[in-house]
Amino acid sequence: MSKETIKIFDTTLRDGEQSPGASMNTEEKIQIAAQLERLGVDIIEAGFAAASPGDFDAIEKIAQRVEKSTVCSLARAVDADVKAAGEAIAKAKMKRIHTFIATSPIHMEYKLKMKPDEVIKRAVRAVEYARTFVEDVEFSCEDAGRSDISFMKEISDAVIEAGATTINLPDTVGFRLPFEIGAMVKEMSEYVRGRAIISVHNHNDLGLGVANSLEAVVNGARQVECTINGLGERAGNAALEEIVMALKVRNDVFSNFVTNINTKEIYPTSRLIANITGIEPQPNKAIVGKNAFAHESGIHQDGVLKHKETYEIISPKDIGLDLNDTLVLGKHSGRAAFKDKLSKLGFTLEDEALNRAFERFKILADRKKEICDDDIRALVTNEMTKAAQVFEIVSLQLMDCSEGVPSAAVKIRKGEDETMDASIGGGTIDAVFKAIDRITGYTGRLDEYKVKSVSEGKDALANVTVKVSFNNEPAVIGHGLHIDTMLASARAYIGALNSYLSMEGKLKARYTDSSITV
Amino acid sequence: MSKETIKIFDTTLRDGEQSPGASMNTEEKIQIAAQLERLGVDIIEAGFAAASPGDFDAIEKIAQRVEKSTVCSLARAVDADVKAAGEAIAKAKMKRIHTFIATSPIHMEYKLKMKPDEVIKRAVRAVEYARTFVEDVEFSCEDAGRSDISFMKEISDAVIEAGATTINLPDTVGFRLPFEIGAMVKEMSEYVRGRAIISVHNHNDLGLGVANSLEAVVNGARQVECTINGLGERAGNAALEEIVMALKVRNDVFSNFVTNINTKEIYPTSRLIANITGIEPQPNKAIVGKNAFAHESGIHQDGVLKHKETYEIISPKDIGLDLNDTLVLGKHSGRAAFKDKLSKLGFTLEDEALNRAFERFKILADRKKEICDDDIRALVTNEMTKAAQVFEIVSLQLMDCSEGVPSAAVKIRKGEDETMDASIGGGTIDAVFKAIDRITGYTGRLDEYKVKSVSEGKDALANVTVKVSFNNEPAVIGHGLHIDTMLASARAYIGALNSYLSMEGKLKARYTDSSITV
Repeated sequence: MSKETIKIFDTTLRDGEQSPGASMNTEEKIQIAAQLERLGVDIIEAGFAAASPGDFDAIEKIAQRVEKSTVCSLARAVDADVKAAGEAIAKAKMKRIHTFIATSPIHMEYKLKMKPDEVIKRAVRAVEYARTFVEDVEFSCEDAGRSDISFMKEISDAVIEAGATTINLPDTVGFRLPFEIGAMVKEMSEYVRGRAIISVHNHNDLGLGVANSLEAVVNGARQVECTINGLGERAGNAALEEIVMALKVRNDVFSNFVTNINTKEIYPTSRLIANITGIEPQPNKAIVGKNAFAHESGIHQDGVLKHKETYEIISPKDIGLDLNDTLVLGKHSGRAAFKDKLSKLGFTLEDEALNRAFERFKILADRKKEICDDDIRALVTNEMTKAAQVFEIVSLQLMDCSEGVPSAAVKIRKGEDETMDASIGGGTIDAVFKAIDRITGYTGRLDEYKVKSVSEGKDALANVTVKVSFNNEPAVIGHGLHIDTMLASARAYIGALNSYLSMEGKLKARYTDSSITV
Repeated sequence: MSKETIKIFDTTLRDGEQSPGASMNTEEKIQIAAQLERLGVDIIEAGFAAASPGDFDAIEKIAQRVEKSTVCSLARAVDADVKAAGEAIAKAKMKRIHTFIATSPIHMEYKLKMKPDEVIKRAVRAVEYARTFVEDVEFSCEDAGRSDISFMKEISDAVIEAGATTINLPDTVGFRLPFEIGAMVKEMSEYVRGRAIISVHNHNDLGLGVANSLEAVVNGARQVECTINGLGERAGNAALEEIVMALKVRNDVFSNFVTNINTKEIYPTSRLIANITGIEPQPNKAIVGKNAFAHESGIHQDGVLKHKETYEIISPKDIGLDLNDTLVLGKHSGRAAFKDKLSKLGFTLEDEALNRAFERFKILADRKKEICDDDIRALVTNEMTKAAQVFEIVSLQLMDCSEGVPSAAVKIRKGEDETMDASIGGGTIDAVFKAIDRITGYTGRLDEYKVKSVSEGKDALANVTVKVSFNNEPAVIGHGLHIDTMLASARAYIGALNSYLSMEGKLKARYTDSSITV
């Protein structure tokens, strides 16, 4: 019997980006899309074109770059949204518009304030209009989990007739149990058989997103919407890596199904997204958490040494994590070895970016004895995804003395000009940030500050992530990487400001209308 | 029809502590046990008494303190383990010994190197011996997920006959799908009905721990083993908060079942454990993640404002999270207000600890304008769980200058003596830690360094967590909390050293024998 392919629809760039604190700049989104393509994702939902000029811009650039995956934009069931989506993805090799409207009584009554008949009309209009831009149209019954199944059948008939080929049934509030999702998918997929495929989009509010997705597959769903690291609104979406690995590891049960995912790209993809968003999967996260393959207790270690499968059901190599491949480069490594390592880690840098990354690598190698894969990943991601550097930290001095007054002096370059100033602060980092504010003339509100050591040892690279809001606009993220936590912090703060300046004026439009989402 | 109570067996202090990097000192374990009791957990697995003198000591102290929950120790099916368990919990009001041996062919052959008959003999002997210490004995078929069901029936008959009243079926490698766990539990619970109750212990390697636990309940399990924040070996255990809230929120489906959990203590418990272990649930973690109740997109916000249930299926108040109750105390707040706040947050401090915490609160209030609940939680946890302070940071001076040499001078008190010294370093933090090493004479290897801002703003408290290994012994955790990240880092490092010294000689014995775990 031939196997059925389960399409993997990744919405890290759309629903994932709706995670508070996960906003990304255009360059970061492009890098993620390229990695999702390498991962073998069937459909990349690249954003919500009508949400803001920044979203539109990112989708358009992704559409021009991605070749092997379908590029998709979300659109509410209104003409302006569909038009924006159609235009943003126009240049993609394979393209899809994903339009949606709520179908649950509670959403129709309180949010849309529409009668069911009007909802159907809006849906049909949106799908017909979408078909003037693309062949491939997906329609979502928002809040399907709480919708009446006979109404979903009715609206599905109408939108399929209008040209939709995928019907998505999102459990928008993450409310449903596996047996309920299974029953809904079974009934709907039998109903639309031969006319459209059924997709699911499960949120994780009760911790059941993955179980619900697997149950959907068994009951007839042929597309699963998910995100890397389970990012997404509130408790996030079903995690791509968990769904794909469950299908693979339990192939004895799921023997009829395959995906197009190259699982060896799972770990690199997870790291890229964690490095960019600053949202680190918890150590005990399935598949990609730092401890997922660690065996702490002596008993487990002993068991693993005696016979691997006693405690290990997945080989780290299957997800592209080579535990033995740590120390690789040092201060005597040349440009060729560095480039070779990058390509092994899945990075392809243009010459100029490669030169910059190599320069930073050499500076790091002077200070840090052993440079491991995760150091390089962090360094290169940081280099590739940086917004245009309007401001740049030239140098930093600081003094701190308990019972004294922490102070910092900073020198910043902007174009040809170098400016310096100093400030005191409640702590050293406070002083550094205040000095930067003085020089740049922008005052940031610090929403979040995090430091993580990239590897082990007192000379580990510090990876600083800040979330800063300038001029009361939505917060932006900045990253800084350096062996000195203070310099890494200054760079992160300036990085956030540069990212803000690259998006200035493109941030505000986000979702002003009061309609719909999935 | 009367409802059936599902017993909640929390193993945060045992399986959770086996998370790499989650080791806790005795004082921390006692605080956690007290909070688990407030949460309403039926059974607290307080540790593995035979693992090390430190584990034994912590279990013994917990047994003396906890009154409303059963206190349990794990024990391999060997006399020495059972004896240690029995002695450690001897003074508990309600007590249980949990003994186990592997029952899967792969574990019996490769790890135990025993024939099934010998395994049964060992199990029976362990249960009989355990009954000489306690009435309440639980037996686990380790790796039940891969065990032969007829063999599990055979061994269950034998251990029930020997006096076991709970049979636990752990999916040790987190391999099983919900329908498989359901079938296993159904057959086993029908088989032992009236003689013992069936328990499950699901690991989360494929992201299915919670779904598997719920399926077990529906099929007859009357005890669920789980951990706060889903901590545990590798990808961790099924998360207590997700299981309990799924049963509660979907009471329409689970109408026959209740738990004894006071859900309003879920959030405080989760924070306590995150603060102590330094393992923060990812923001998109169900129920207790920082974003679980956040609505980022304008559309969702709009929906929630119009009608709460459009996007919210759980009220934050149900888990004890009061989103409106942020700013509370400032520099003019007195001791009474502070004490009142603490009791509202669930802390009961003895007078001396209260005085110390209040003193630190006043120092903080001088530097930071607005002090929120999370600041206080972090500060008090830090105060309560500190090991005896052999060394104490008196003062700190540092200088850093890019292109220059970062240096730090530190003054440390030990008893009556104050010693100072300085060091250079690769970065400022490196310099601080090296200066501390010089003064104390201990050289630590830094395994992990993390900073998180406790609240928002440039004057937020920095919460530093370090994982340090001294003398090549297992790593210990240290925490430091201060508005100045440098001072917080120094305190965290000294905290780790103090914690190490409080456990010196108690760490090494951990799991030297090559037998078994759950």
